Amino acid sequence: MKHLEFAHDPCISHLYTERAQAQAERDDLRRVCSHAEGTAGALMSSAYARVAVDLTAAQAIDALRREAADAQALYQAYVLDEQRRLLGTLSLRELILAAPDTPVAQLMVKPVVSVTVAASQESVARLISHHDLPALPVLDEQARLVGIVTCDDAMDVVVEEATEDFHKGALIATRIGNLKTATTGLLYRKRVFWLVLLVFGNLFSGAGIAAFEDTIAAHIVLVFFLPLLVDSGGNAGAQSATLMVRGLATGEVAMRDWLSMLGRECGVALLLGLTMAVAVASLGALRGGADVAFIVASSMLVIVLVGSLIGMSLPFLLSRLRLDPATASGPLVTSIADAAGVLVYFGIASQVLDI
Amino acid sequence: MKHLEFAHDPCISHLYTERAQAQAERDDLRRVCSHAEGTAGALMSSAYARVAVDLTAAQAIDALRREAADAQALYQAYVLDEQRRLLGTLSLRELILAAPDTPVAQLMVKPVVSVTVAASQESVARLISHHDLPALPVLDEQARLVGIVTCDDAMDVVVEEATEDFHKGALIATRIGNLKTATTGLLYRKRVFWLVLLVFGNLFSGAGIAAFEDTIAAHIVLVFFLPLLVDSGGNAGAQSATLMVRGLATGEVAMRDWLSMLGRECGVALLLGLTMAVAVASLGALRGGADVAFIVASSMLVIVLVGSLIGMSLPFLLSRLRLDPATASGPLVTSIADAAGVLVYFGIASQVLDI
Repeated sequence: MKHLEFAHDPCISHLYTERAQAQAERDDLRRVCSHAEGTAGALMSSAYARVAVDLTAAQAIDALRREAADAQALYQAYVLDEQRRLLGTLSLRELILAAPDTPVAQLMVKPVVSVTVAASQESVARLISHHDLPALPVLDEQARLVGIVTCDDAMDVVVEEATEDFHKGALIATRIGNLKTATTGLLYRKRVFWLVLLVFGNLFSGAGIAAFEDTIAAHIVLVFFLPLLVDSGGNAGAQSATLMVRGLATGEVAMRDWLSMLGRECGVALLLGLTMAVAVASLGALRGGADVAFIVASSMLVIVLVGSLIGMSLPFLLSRLRLDPATASGPLVTSIADAAGVLVYFGIASQVLDI
Repeated sequence: MKHLEFAHDPCISHLYTERAQAQAERDDLRRVCSHAEGTAGALMSSAYARVAVDLTAAQAIDALRREAADAQALYQAYVLDEQRRLLGTLSLRELILAAPDTPVAQLMVKPVVSVTVAASQESVARLISHHDLPALPVLDEQARLVGIVTCDDAMDVVVEEATEDFHKGALIATRIGNLKTATTGLLYRKRVFWLVLLVFGNLFSGAGIAAFEDTIAAHIVLVFFLPLLVDSGGNAGAQSATLMVRGLATGEVAMRDWLSMLGRECGVALLLGLTMAVAVASLGALRGGADVAFIVASSMLVIVLVGSLIGMSLPFLLSRLRLDPATASGPLVTSIADAAGVLVYFGIASQVLDI
């Protein structure tokens, strides 16, 4: 990112003295202005050109010439009033095309899409993407222009966020940094917490199995179908959860859509469960006869239904608890669906076989 | 995206007659010019301003004025020779700052970062992000400028690609479109294939268990630890796979890094396995005594090691087979690691208990 020096926000401009240290300085800037990480304020740069609203086209060109001493890339100029409030945007093209005495107020385009410094970087990226903007102006609480977020900086955020969501889904604590240069110790620390936690989480599945030890001992054939049935619930759940997590992340779905989504998910899960039940019924018949065929088919139907509904609901639940829904898309939902699957399978089996 | 009409690529410009149908026209354009989907050629627009290299600053401004009749956003002008080969870029700022008789050749910046029409959209997005470009010029095989990809279009691609990778990881066939409006039937079709395939894939785990039926029947306590051990391998594998898949997608790691990554992964997996072995050893001792403690602890160590190495290797293997590595990050790696885990666990158990 090239940094320009013609924006004179008192909290920004004095930091931009040595261009080679631009990135380090932007970090300083963030600290000095103390905008919270992940907000538009922390992401913005002072690389914007501004023009007073009461100038003519010719005066505006002169002003840009004087102020924009070493600008490298310039997207558009922002038209401000005396209080530095944003009134409109002005393309350089409009400026050079206009008759010299045309007032800037006539040439500018309004209204302007903008955010406040406190806006989340996700919403910044979403606005830039949705409105196809080269840069998005950032305003303070008094609607004064304090910076812009350029599209290329927003793109870095989008890539970073997606990476974090991928990692969270796999229950890796985030901020690995560059994967290629990450040390063994760092990777260990980022991965161990959830893995150990899930070991204890999976005790529920184990306890579920233990509760049905007699049924299993009497019908050892049931164990053959255990991974197949239990994993199917986890897999269906991971699909539902991933669809929701990504839908929430891109803004395609919102919390209020949960109920209508749940209705559709029931339909999808029922169809999936029926298909998979048919697939395993024949296997069950082959290995254990009609009883086992019935047990595995009905278990499959219920397990896929339960797994899908867990996968569908967990991201919304986490979101409501102000936790990151991205955590729900992988092994977490699989482990929960697994435990549910064990109970369903052996619950049905003990009913059918022991009565 | 606003479309300009001052670029006269014969294959592009005649399509840009009605601005309201810009998107539909861009689709036409893609078909007409027959650039493969997912390439720079399919993504580029003709919204660029060009300037002949032998003009002065004043002449260039005039030329832009004449040609750029309805341009809305203008990033920079591209300086071309008579064969339309790209010589450099020219910012509008440089133009208005320059003395009127300065030759464009003196004002332009070179070399220019560019891609060919056949470049992948991933590489386009990566270049824009890496070089902080507002737009990236696209050249044909003869190094002639044929279009530009703007940062905001590249951002849409980045978001789309991340979504596709998330879905692929959860084994959902891609191109769901908008999740909110997707029909039950569509979601069913996109999800059913892999779910049924994994049912049959999990037969391997079932068959593994069946092979050790006698061991299990004699020591039913072993079943208690089955989900816990098997899932740990899957979870560790999903972490490794996700790190690799995302590393490959963002370009942080490449195929040639595989061997050095594998070495580090062995170290990480060993540490993780040891930690988790300690965690389960006490559980094993509690439920089944010293023998079981030894079995579950040593199984855990081996299973986490094997799971991590499978998770680490699968994305590279898929990549080498020209399949999409993103498929490896979720249930696929979990299912494979599960089957391996069953074999390891009961293999160790039957050795320890039956001898």
